[in-house]
Parts: sequence; C-alpha cells; structure tokens
Amino acid sequence: MNGMKILVVIPNYGMSSETLKEREKMLKSMTSMNTEFNVVCIDRGPETIEGYYDEVLAGPAILNKLKGADKIYDAVIIYCFSDPAVEAAREMLDIPVIGPGEASIYIAAMLGHKFSLITALEELIPKDVERVYKMGFGHRLASVRAVNIPVADIRKDLTKTVEKIMEVAKKAVEEDGAQVIILACLGFAGLGYEIQKRLGVPVVDPAVVAVKMAELMVDMKVTHSRKFYLRPRKKVRVDK
Amino acid sequence: MNGMKILVVIPNYGMSSETLKEREKMLKSMTSMNTEFNVVCIDRGPETIEGYYDEVLAGPAILNKLKGADKIYDAVIIYCFSDPAVEAAREMLDIPVIGPGEASIYIAAMLGHKFSLITALEELIPKDVERVYKMGFGHRLASVRAVNIPVADIRKDLTKTVEKIMEVAKKAVEEDGAQVIILACLGFAGLGYEIQKRLGVPVVDPAVVAVKMAELMVDMKVTHSRKFYLRPRKKVRVDK
Amino acid sequence: MNGMKILVVIPNYGMSSETLKEREKMLKSMTSMNTEFNVVCIDRGPETIEGYYDEVLAGPAILNKLKGADKIYDAVIIYCFSDPAVEAAREMLDIPVIGPGEASIYIAAMLGHKFSLITALEELIPKDVERVYKMGFGHRLASVRAVNIPVADIRKDLTKTVEKIMEVAKKAVEEDGAQVIILACLGFAGLGYEIQKRLGVPVVDPAVVAVKMAELMVDMKVTHSRKFYLRPRKKVRVDK
Amino acid sequence: MNGMKILVVIPNYGMSSETLKEREKMLKSMTSMNTEFNVVCIDRGPETIEGYYDEVLAGPAILNKLKGADKIYDAVIIYCFSDPAVEAAREMLDIPVIGPGEASIYIAAMLGHKFSLITALEELIPKDVERVYKMGFGHRLASVRAVNIPVADIRKDLTKTVEKIMEVAKKAVEEDGAQVIILACLGFAGLGYEIQKRLGVPVVDPAVVAVKMAELMVDMKVTHSRKFYLRPRKKVRVDK
Amino acid sequence: MNGMKILVVIPNYGMSSETLKEREKMLKSMTSMNTEFNVVCIDRGPETIEGYYDEVLAGPAILNKLKGADKIYDAVIIYCFSDPAVEAAREMLDIPVIGPGEASIYIAAMLGHKFSLITALEELIPKDVERVYKMGFGHRLASVRAVNIPVADIRKDLTKTVEKIMEVAKKAVEEDGAQVIILACLGFAGLGYEIQKRLGVPVVDPAVVAVKMAELMVDMKVTHSRKFYLRPRKKVRVDK
Amino acid sequence: MNGMKILVVIPNYGMSSETLKEREKMLKSMTSMNTEFNVVCIDRGPETIEGYYDEVLAGPAILNKLKGADKIYDAVIIYCFSDPAVEAAREMLDIPVIGPGEASIYIAAMLGHKFSLITALEELIPKDVERVYKMGFGHRLASVRAVNIPVADIRKDLTKTVEKIMEVAKKAVEEDGAQVIILACLGFAGLGYEIQKRLGVPVVDPAVVAVKMAELMVDMKVTHSRKFYLRPRKKVRVDK
Repeated sequence: MNGMKILVVIPNYGMSSETLKEREKMLKSMTSMNTEFNVVCIDRGPETIEGYYDEVLAGPAILNKLKGADKIYDAVIIYCFSDPAVEAAREMLDIPVIGPGEASIYIAAMLGHKFSLITALEELIPKDVERVYKMGFGHRLASVRAVNIPVADIRKDLTKTVEKIMEVAKKAVEEDGAQVIILACLGFAGLGYEIQKRLGVPVVDPAVVAVKMAELMVDMKVTHSRKFYLRPRKKVRVDK
Repeated sequence: MNGMKILVVIPNYGMSSETLKEREKMLKSMTSMNTEFNVVCIDRGPETIEGYYDEVLAGPAILNKLKGADKIYDAVIIYCFSDPAVEAAREMLDIPVIGPGEASIYIAAMLGHKFSLITALEELIPKDVERVYKMGFGHRLASVRAVNIPVADIRKDLTKTVEKIMEVAKKAVEEDGAQVIILACLGFAGLGYEIQKRLGVPVVDPAVVAVKMAELMVDMKVTHSRKFYLRPRKKVRVDK
Repeated sequence: MNGMKILVVIPNYGMSSETLKEREKMLKSMTSMNTEFNVVCIDRGPETIEGYYDEVLAGPAILNKLKGADKIYDAVIIYCFSDPAVEAAREMLDIPVIGPGEASIYIAAMLGHKFSLITALEELIPKDVERVYKMGFGHRLASVRAVNIPVADIRKDLTKTVEKIMEVAKKAVEEDGAQVIILACLGFAGLGYEIQKRLGVPVVDPAVVAVKMAELMVDMKVTHSRKFYLRPRKKVRVDK
Repeated sequence: MNGMKILVVIPNYGMSSETLKEREKMLKSMTSMNTEFNVVCIDRGPETIEGYYDEVLAGPAILNKLKGADKIYDAVIIYCFSDPAVEAAREMLDIPVIGPGEASIYIAAMLGHKFSLITALEELIPKDVERVYKMGFGHRLASVRAVNIPVADIRKDLTKTVEKIMEVAKKAVEEDGAQVIILACLGFAGLGYEIQKRLGVPVVDPAVVAVKMAELMVDMKVTHSRKFYLRPRKKVRVDK
Repeated sequence: MNGMKILVVIPNYGMSSETLKEREKMLKSMTSMNTEFNVVCIDRGPETIEGYYDEVLAGPAILNKLKGADKIYDAVIIYCFSDPAVEAAREMLDIPVIGPGEASIYIAAMLGHKFSLITALEELIPKDVERVYKMGFGHRLASVRAVNIPVADIRKDLTKTVEKIMEVAKKAVEEDGAQVIILACLGFAGLGYEIQKRLGVPVVDPAVVAVKMAELMVDMKVTHSRKFYLRPRKKVRVDK
Repeated sequence: MNGMKILVVIPNYGMSSETLKEREKMLKSMTSMNTEFNVVCIDRGPETIEGYYDEVLAGPAILNKLKGADKIYDAVIIYCFSDPAVEAAREMLDIPVIGPGEASIYIAAMLGHKFSLITALEELIPKDVERVYKMGFGHRLASVRAVNIPVADIRKDLTKTVEKIMEVAKKAVEEDGAQVIILACLGFAGLGYEIQKRLGVPVVDPAVVAVKMAELMVDMKVTHSRKFYLRPRKKVRVDK
C-alpha cells in the first residue's frame, strides 16, 4: 500500500529547518507503516506554548499553515499537548486533525484506571488539571507533576530531561497511585519508551500517540463529525 | 463616587463607529451606577463569531485591543457569548475580564435549577451543549434552542427577533422544563427584560450580566487568581 | 438614582442593637452604590448556626422576619454561610433572596479553577465538603480548613482571627493548591480584603459578595424562577 | 426476640388520633418482625409538606417531637418523602433516623438502573428532580411524573389515587424507560404492592422501605456517623 | 411468621463442610428474624477471589449452584465483596440476589458522607477504587486501605486480623476523613461490631448487611427489575 | 516490517470453521498493515452474548482460548461489543487485549460530542445505557437504538440488516442529536463504512476499531498497566 501523508504543524515560531527535519525523521521512526510526514512550524506567534495567552496568539498562524491541507494530506497533527486550534482546524478541514493531548488521555484511559501527567512547569499544573476535568476524566487523574524545565529548554539536554521525568514519574506512581504516565508536553517526544522500560508502568508518548492515532483514523476512513465541527459559514474574515 | 471605566471589545470585524456608539449608549442604560464604557471592535478577523474557527481567528485581534487596558480601565468585557480569548485576556491583564457566557450561566444557576439557552442557529446547538457540560452545568441544562437567524442579521429586525425568541423560549419552558432562559448571543443584548415580562420566567440578558458582573468584581476589589491565570512568561512572540 | 433597600436577617438569637447597627455600618461601607440596609436578628432559635440542628431551629424565625419584606425592600440577605431557609424564603417572597454561601461559591468559581473554604470549626469540615459537592462544585474544591474558633468567638478578637485565617489560608494555597480562598463564615465579614492583600490570591468575603449580588440582581431586574421556587399553596399553617 | 420500638413523626399539623392509629396499624402490617410503632404528628406547622417553605416551618416541630426519643425508641422515621429535618434529627439523637425519601432512592438503585418518581403535584417535579441530582443519582433518574392530586387529598379516594398512579407509572415505564417506580409521597403508603403486581416492575413503597430500613439499621447495630452528624454544641437556643 | 430461606454461595473452591456449617451458624447469629441459611461453596474455580481473573473463573460455578434456587429459596447471597456474577444471577432467578459489596456501599452512604474501604491486599486497592467510581460513589470515597493479608489467611488468626483492621481503619478516620468504615472482604465477616465499638464510627460488616438486605427485600416483596435484568433468551448454551 | 499476529476470540459457541475463516478474511481486509489474524470461537458457553448471564457463561471459555497467547501473538481481540472477560484477560496476559466496545466508545468520543449506539435488541438498551454511564461517558450519549434482530440472525441477511441500521441510525441523528454512530454489536462488523457513506456522519465499526487499536497498541509498544491489571496470584484454581 502507498503510505499516507501527514502534515504536522508545530505551533512554535522560529524553528530552524534542521530541527524540523529532525522531527520529521523522529516521527518517521515511530511507525511501522509507510507514512510520510511534512513538519512545519508557524510563521508568527510565540516561540513556545505555555498558557492560554500563547495558545490564542498561535491560533491563526496554525490555521494559516493548514489552508488546503485536505487536498494534499491524509491527516493533520497539531504538535502540542494543549491541542491549540484543534477544534477550529476540524471545522476548516475534511481530514482527521489529531490533538496529541486529547488522544494521549484517551489512550492512557484504556491502559489503566488512574494516570498522571508529567508537564513542563510547576505553574502549568492547575491548567492541566482543569483540562483533564473538562474532558470528563477528572476521576481518572492521579496527579499532575512537573519537571520544572521551561518548554524551550526541554530538548537542550535530553539526558537531564529523562532523569527529571524519571524522578517525578516515580513519585506519581509511588505516592499518587498513577498506573499510567502521560508525557504531557511534545518536548518529551520520543522519550516514552525508554522511560517505560525503566519505570515498569505504561508511558504514553504524545508524539507516538499522535502518529498512530492519525494512521488509525485514516485507515478507518473516519473523520470528525460535521454535525459538531461545522464547516465555517461564508462571511468576511480579514487577516491583515 | 467616581464611576468605573470598562473597556468592551466586540470580536466582530468592521462595525461602524455609529453602531459602536449605540452599543455604548445601550450598555450605559443597563446600570444604575456611574460607569463609563468604551466600546471597540476588532481590526481584523471575522465579522461575527459562529464556531471555533471564527473564535480562533478573532483571538489575537481581541488581545491586541486589550494591550495596556489595565492601565486605563477597571474591567474588560469581551462582548460575545462564546467568551473567545477570555482566559488569555485574564493571563494578560491585572483587571477583571468578564466573559458574558460564563457569567450568564452562573447567574442563571442562582435563579432556578434548570435553564435553557436560546442561540442563533440550529447548527450551533451541539457546541452550546458541549460548552455547558464542560463548565460542569450539564445536569442543569434543560435544552438549547435556536431562533435560526444568522448572528449578522439578529439586530436587523429586532421585533422579528423578539417574536422568534418568544416562540422558542416558550417551548423551552413548556416542553423542556426550563425554569430560567439565557439569551445565549450578544446579538440579543437588551431584549431580556421585555421577554422576561412577557414570558413570566427570569430571562438572563448577557449584556446586562456582563455589565453588572464587571461592576461587582471591581467594587469587590477581586481579580482572577494568578495561581491559575499565569502572567505570560517573557519570550519571543511575533505578530506580523 | 435612589438607593435600594436591603433587609439583612442574621439567624442568630439575642444580638444587641449596637451590634446590629455596627453590621449595618459595615455593610454600607462595602458598596459604592447608594444602598440602605436594615439588619435584624431572629427572635427565637440558636445564638449561632453550627450544624443542621441549629439551621432547622432558626428556620421559622428567619421566615418570620421576612413577612411582607417584598412590600418594603428590594432584596433580602440571609446572613449566614450555610444559607439556612434561603429556598423557603424564595418561595415566600417576590424579591431576590441572597444566600451568601451559594453566591460566594459561584463568584469564586469565576476567579480560578480550585478554591478552598475557611470555616470556623474542624468538626464542621465534612458538612462544608458535602455542601460543595451537592452544589456540583466538588471537583473545584481544593480543601476546607478550619480556624478552630467557635462562631460566637470569631469577632471577639479580630486580630487573632485574621492571623488564624492567614495561617490556614496559606496552607490551603501552598499545600492544597487553592487558587481562591472563600471565607466560609459570616463571622469573617469584612476581613476579606486585608487577607487578600497579604495572601496574594483572591479572597471571597461572603458579606461583600452578598451585598453586591443583591444589588446585581435588583439592578438586573431578575428574581428567582417561580417554576422552581413555588409560591406556597394556601393551607393551614399553625405557628404557636 | 423482643420487638423494637420505632417512633414515627408525621410532619403534618392537625391529624386526628384515629388517623394516627390507622397509620400505626398499617405500618405494623408492613413487617414480619415484632416491631412496635408509635405514630405522632406535629403540634404546629403546616398541615402538609409541599415545598421548602412547608419543610422549614415543620422543622422545629418535628425536632420537638423527638426530644429524648433515643431513651425510649430504637429508631425514628420522619414520615415524609422530602425527609424534612432528617439531618438535624440525626445530630440530635443517638439512634437511627430514617428518611423515607433517601432510603427509597437507595433501594430503587439496587433493583434496576433507571427509576422514576411518582409525586403528588406537577409543580413539585422540578424540586424532586433537583433532589435526586443532589443525592448523586441524577444519571439514574428516568423521570418524575405527577398524579396531580394535592397531598391533603391523596388518601381521600384511594381507588382513584391508585388508578392515577397506574396511569402515570405506565407512562414512566413505557415512555421514559423507568425500570423501577418509586412512590415519592408518603400519602401513597401501602399502595406499592398492588401497583407492583399490576405494573410488572418493582414498585418502591416509601412507608415499607422506611419500616424495613429502620429494622435493618437497628438489627445491624449501626447508627449514623458522629463524624458527620455532630452532636449539637451547648449554646443558647430559645424556643418561644 | 415462618422464617425465610436464604441460599448463600461462597465463590471459593474447596471449603470443608465444617467451615460451611460454621458460616451458617455465624449468619444465623446475625439476624433477629427467623431465617434459615444454606451455605454452599463452588465445585470448580479458584479457592479465593482476588481480581478479575478469579471472578471470571468462578462465574459459571456460581451460577451452577443457583440452578432452580428460586423454587426453594426466598433470596440468594453471593458471598464475596466483589459481587461476582450477581448481575447474571439476577437475570437467571426470580428472587432477590444480594451482592454484599453493592449493598454495603449503599448502607454506608446512608450513615455518613465519606467512607473508607478496608480491603485484603495493597495491590487490590486500585480495583476497589475503580469499582466505587463505577457505582457512582467516587465523591463519597475517603480512601481504600489494605490489611495486607491474603484472602485465604484472613480467618486463620482473627485476633491479628482485627488488630490490623483497627490499625488501618484508624488511619482512614484520622488521616483520610472517613466517617464510616466498610469491611470490604467477606473474610472480615462478623468482625464489624467489635471494631465499631473500639473505633467509635459506624462499621459496615458486609455479611450482616447481606443478611439484612436479603430479609428486607423479601419482606418488602420486591425483586430486581426485569426491564433491566432480562430473563435469558432460549439458545444453545454448552457447559462441558 | 514483518506483520503482527493477532488472536481473535469470538465468544460464541459452535461457529463453523468456514465462518471463522470468513471473519479472518474480513479482518485482514480492514487494515493496510501486514497483520495476520487467527480467529477462534469458544468450546463451551452460549452461542451468542445477549446479557450478563451469557457473558458469565462465556468467561472461562474465553480465557481458556487465551492460554499462552502472549507467547505467540502480539495482541488479542475479544470479539464482542460487551467486552466479556477483557479485564480478566488483561490480568492473564502480557500483551494488549482489546475490547471492541471500550475502544469504539473512546474513538467515537474523539469524533464528536454526542454519539448513539445501535444495538441488536430493544431489551438490551438499558444495559448499553448503563455501560456507557459506568465508563464515564453518560453525558456524551445521545441515545441507544435497536434494530430488533437477535444477534444470531444479524448476518443472515446483511442487506436487511443494513437497511434496519440505516433506519434507526437516521432517527438517532435527526431525533436524538447523535453526531457519531457506533455499531454496538460485532454482528455489524464490516458494515460501518457503507452506512457512513449513506448517513453522512462518522460511523464507528467495532471490528475495524478493534483491529486498528490492537495495531496501535502493539506499534506503540504499550500494554495495560500491571498496577491495575494484576498478575493473578498463585493459588488452587480447578477447571473441571
């Protein structure tokens, strides 16, 4: 079978083309299917997403990258655990749009009863807690714990990042009763399997989940419902 | 006492200055306090908000209008029932930011056990239902009903709009068990009291609620918690 | 505009007229509107409300003070965080009846995602927890903590009371993740703003909330729904 | 074994001693244990309970009848589906206090997944719905339906009452998906078994439930927890 | 009145007839009614139930013991806190089938707001937590704590078992806020009353609950709804 | 890449080897990956699963077919929407065990806000409703509707079955507000895509979901958590 083509939009401003290529290579390594990835970042907006303010600023820039995507690609991944603009993108496009955060939480819920999220910064914990409650999974949440590394620095020293994740994930398992760990930042992409081997409980890697869920949706030939995600009505929309 | 000053941002592109003045006058008439309003609309984005796509496009344009608002104003109202960018605005500013949708639902919940929302278009109903559930008020929702007038046309013939609201609100009360009616579109601003008198159940007018809730917050000297709505971290944010 | 008139019933037996005058003055200072208050206490029942038993005993005495109130006043406040007889009062009267507990929880929910209650006595904590759950806000509750001062003694040494509140409120913020603090006893009335300044998170003062919410309801011209709060049917009711 | 002694307080003012004797006889017939009943009514308050207003007025009169009951009786039943003053009575007494409403809902929940309540008056439906939600059984509620007979008239023509219950209970089963029927008014006491035989689904009779639950609690030697239902603190409580 | 007859199936393989007789005697001592018990164990399956795997293996063996039970008995108790095969047994039989776990949780919920479960093994805690959530009582759960004795050893040294229960139950009350304790293993049968006396909060003994709930259902003449627990359709079912 | 090997256990007694081969072929056609399927049915138990009774009877027979499966296969699918013995199988095995019901509901929840289930028989509706509530998705359920064909007859006339599904699925969308349709019986396997094309909303085919979810789990190298699904302790377990 010919592989699918997935467009991956990273809602971070100003990534180098080398870094984008590297992400492409990493995503390619995460699947045993014959899938092609095109990884792009946004042309305006914040360099990283850490809160509602950044999400809103990144929104139109994300949608801008998605124009006409359903003519060329089979699916879209918005490469951020907060899933910014995912619902808007679903209204805009006729192909599956994957939010790694949403997909990771659903997958974790199939692996155990209680899960913990590992996030970047201590101060983002309340936002993650609220998000899980709004999704209706509050009673499944063991805890949210933070490695306390700003998003922009997470991949600068991956060894240190892994050690920090191990430290807080262990606490989540031993003190909070987590049965499953979710890496709740795409900065942690690709680290899940190593941590899982060392930790002994399932670790949900949001990048892997996003890739596999995109493939699942495409292979199943399903897309989000147009009864909920409405095709935008024709109207004046100015984007200066 | 000197009056407060409230900045009102309408997330609609391209409103005339006459219309903005008219809204200002209407808001002024809604309070018995000595409050001043400055009503502005957005400089780019969609002409009305009907779905997630429009919300995302309007987001940065709303925030743009709010720059430095906490130096000049006592509170901000984002004048749309969907509350677009409200959380981001709270992160950005140190004064109360009122979402008319959120505030209306809380007020309705104090007036009875079950409420119904009256929205613009049939197709927006599922989105309103989801929103009420995410707020944790799903069990209080009697129904969402639509007048089936696009947002842009609601104020073109207010008599017709009132009659249509009466028609569906009656059904909400008689068939769905609504004890309170929420006008779930700012296009309905100012119509609440007339409908309440004719309908015989409390009608929550989102514009009135927004004005009064802003005044309440300012007079109580409280603002949203910085433990949840974080001050945005310093970083590169490009807005071309 | 002429001010509104609000009747405030304190469900405590045997308060001196000086104390009532003092409360009137305090409430007056809490608003920038031109509102008049009449503060009364009950003529029979318990001296303070600490549990269901006291609430039931105070009930008819509260209603007795409300007879004909809707002919004279614009709104009623039942001045106790447990909101005793609030629903019955709403059935009885055609003007807004404010329960400070209910209103405080709704206001807190608009200021952050998780809040804590500060109550009088350790042993009242389970009752407060249950109450928040019954209101549907269980998932928003960070904790309930107690100053361990009986209700009757809270205002005897306000400096000590403030220090005790500071002590437990800090723990609520730092250990329980509270983003907003609710002073969950009317004995704490008027202390909110000082604690907020020292604590750095929003503090909801139930007396201030009650005053402002009463004004909001009156100014909005809404009253509780008669589809839920039924006008009592005519029947024999003996009150010896 | 010697029988237990149960005090039954009917929160209705002005019942004749014949009617009370008749209720005693009926309750006696509902158990196969050797239980004695003492049935009393209140000395002041409303003639029937139809809403919060009546509940509050009846409260202290109920508690008045319970003074010292734990010296003489093994358990107490407050004979009204709204369970007025049940929590206060539990604070006051060291023996089980049964609320027929609460107990009926728990029993129904063990007999099927969805149940309907049959209440007296159409206008009381919203209050019953709210109550079931507050108990945490909202998702188990198929519907509330009313026979539309005022509480005071329900036992005047029991044949008519039974026919009316049959009519609405059938609709609850066939149209609303009720798997279990709860007779949600003590006026319906003793009618459950006949209706169950004709209807073909389990019918929960609140008087039978109250009797059997009281016996169960006494026989199990458990009483409500003093960690939740606190013994009232010593204080001035005036009852003129 | 003639006593009822209750069939008790213990889903443990290989119990001696002496042990079964002893259980019969113990159950007899738990009621003041004139009830007869027939206690049997399963003929195949696991020696104890510790997890889903054991539950599934025990299932058909339990149902096998129930064949024709509604011709001879008034009610059935499946003597295990996990309530294995209870729903299937209800489909099979026309008499009440009591699950001690389900019944204990409902009874506890009537005695206080928050309860804790005492279970056998630390590793079973997550399963108990999930179960309480699935029943809709997650918000009532203070904690689950374990005595860390395998089910098969619990009754080998009852003094030690009681001491271990006391130790963890105290922690549940003092550290977790439990107001009621549920002994969440039938191995603890008959120990509830002693622990309650020493602990000072209500202790729910699942064996006592099961006996009394069976009697309550029979005496009330109600059985589970056939609208939910369907009579099995005729079809090929091979049991080699 | 070499394909994975998936063991599929159909919990129906007495299927012919031709039918099993046919299922194998159908499953093979549902994926674009290089996956091998081995489809087996149970050696004892009921011919179809329609209720709890059948589920319990099928349980040990399902587990019997899974012995040693984790030595040979990469994943297991228990081919029934009720997911019988799925949790027990997860305790038994170290490879992913897919329950098509669970997986379908999670996938549907990612495609829209409200979904409906199409089940076989009218009388099974209450059981499906309960199941969705227990999974925590009650607020996402638009309705359950039945084609009213016994499970054993569903595949006898697939054209008729498709027409019947179309008929009720249309009602679910138009009358109940379903945005996504779930085919809630494995008898409907392979019909999803055709119905989706005709209906215009996403249709979740449980067989396709099971296949793709198994592949996703294997490719992601995750298995259910041993902190929740415990490895069965060593003990006597007799299976005569």
